[in-house]
Amino acid sequence: MDDLARLMIERECSRLPLLFARYADNGDHASLAQLFTEDCEFARPFQPDHPFYGRERVQGLFRDRPPILVRHVVSNVLVEVVSETDARGTNYLTMLSCHASTEPPQPAGGLYVGGFEDHYVLTPGGWRFKSRYGHVALHQGGAMPDIPPPSDEARGVK
Amino acid sequence: MDDLARLMIERECSRLPLLFARYADNGDHASLAQLFTEDCEFARPFQPDHPFYGRERVQGLFRDRPPILVRHVVSNVLVEVVSETDARGTNYLTMLSCHASTEPPQPAGGLYVGGFEDHYVLTPGGWRFKSRYGHVALHQGGAMPDIPPPSDEARGVK
Amino acid sequence: MDDLARLMIERECSRLPLLFARYADNGDHASLAQLFTEDCEFARPFQPDHPFYGRERVQGLFRDRPPILVRHVVSNVLVEVVSETDARGTNYLTMLSCHASTEPPQPAGGLYVGGFEDHYVLTPGGWRFKSRYGHVALHQGGAMPDIPPPSDEARGVK
Repeated sequence: MDDLARLMIERECSRLPLLFARYADNGDHASLAQLFTEDCEFARPFQPDHPFYGRERVQGLFRDRPPILVRHVVSNVLVEVVSETDARGTNYLTMLSCHASTEPPQPAGGLYVGGFEDHYVLTPGGWRFKSRYGHVALHQGGAMPDIPPPSDEARGVK
Repeated sequence: MDDLARLMIERECSRLPLLFARYADNGDHASLAQLFTEDCEFARPFQPDHPFYGRERVQGLFRDRPPILVRHVVSNVLVEVVSETDARGTNYLTMLSCHASTEPPQPAGGLYVGGFEDHYVLTPGGWRFKSRYGHVALHQGGAMPDIPPPSDEARGVK
Repeated sequence: MDDLARLMIERECSRLPLLFARYADNGDHASLAQLFTEDCEFARPFQPDHPFYGRERVQGLFRDRPPILVRHVVSNVLVEVVSETDARGTNYLTMLSCHASTEPPQPAGGLYVGGFEDHYVLTPGGWRFKSRYGHVALHQGGAMPDIPPPSDEARGVK
């Protein structure tokens, strides 16, 4: 692979975490879902041990939750190109949100700092998340939220 | 446009929000102003509904305020190349500041998370901000500052 | 230097602060040390006036401290290519940590925002930090830590 080809793959893949943040923060769950392969795996940072399986269920996660004002601040984006159709990446996420109103500006609860381990693959529609595993490492100004674990059915566990 | 040309435009434009942060944080208002076109529009994140018009007034904003210790933490930089001379972009901003002293390190007041919608154009001097519209989405550890709205004259409204 | 060569140098150098964060946060002090030249200089953000000299002592700094849960959130990465073997860069660092447990997630103490001034050089093994000078500009939610200044011997001062 030549330098330019590698740069282009890195460019494509490093945009995916940023587009994920844009669509998650804009509430555009349809565009967010399109960043994933149909057979993807996705674990939310707040529920690292309960991955969801399949693009439909990832979209449902974001579509069916109450509207919130949220910002996914993405940093430390590193992409390792494995081949012309396969890449891995890690990135950090700093998240703030407000559940009381979606009208900015609003006071946020806690600040949550974690990250993702990503697997990117080239599909006919472009580079996509094949898997995306999140976690939270540290939080400040707010406790970890108490989210009931999703059912196996909701997660698409077969 | 070929891949390399597009990468170069993305490179140039994605540096602008970072240079804006550098000059804003270093107090270098002259260099900051040079990042904008002469006929630019700029709305500060704390005053999204009161844009300033023209490079001179943008420079004045940063030149004429009392010195502060501030950091503009920039992330989520996405650039969409429209043509060889035109591009759009979004990016996130996390801002902390101290008004009591400019001698680091200092305790900051609130943490403010927002972003910008940018319009970049190619000028004879390079890529510049044609417009830059900021907002704050969420804040933590401090209230929104109560800044009196600037006069139409100060903003260059004709 | 042509555009592609410059992009590749920027790519290599802009990865160094991100890899530094990865290895610092993963506790991989051996890989972290390999990011530096043998004769490097490194000043920690919390001790900007007490640089350490030499790769061995940089590794020792990270190897010999008690394990902590920490995240180095890196942003505002700007690289200026000086020549085919020399570059300069600045970047911002937002740091959170917990000293009580390394099992995530944990509540963090203060949030510290600062940055680095870097000097990168090309070595036979690739681009490396020749020097890396850190500082903290602002902190929130916690005081500056009271770290005793290291001895000249610990720092490798001759």
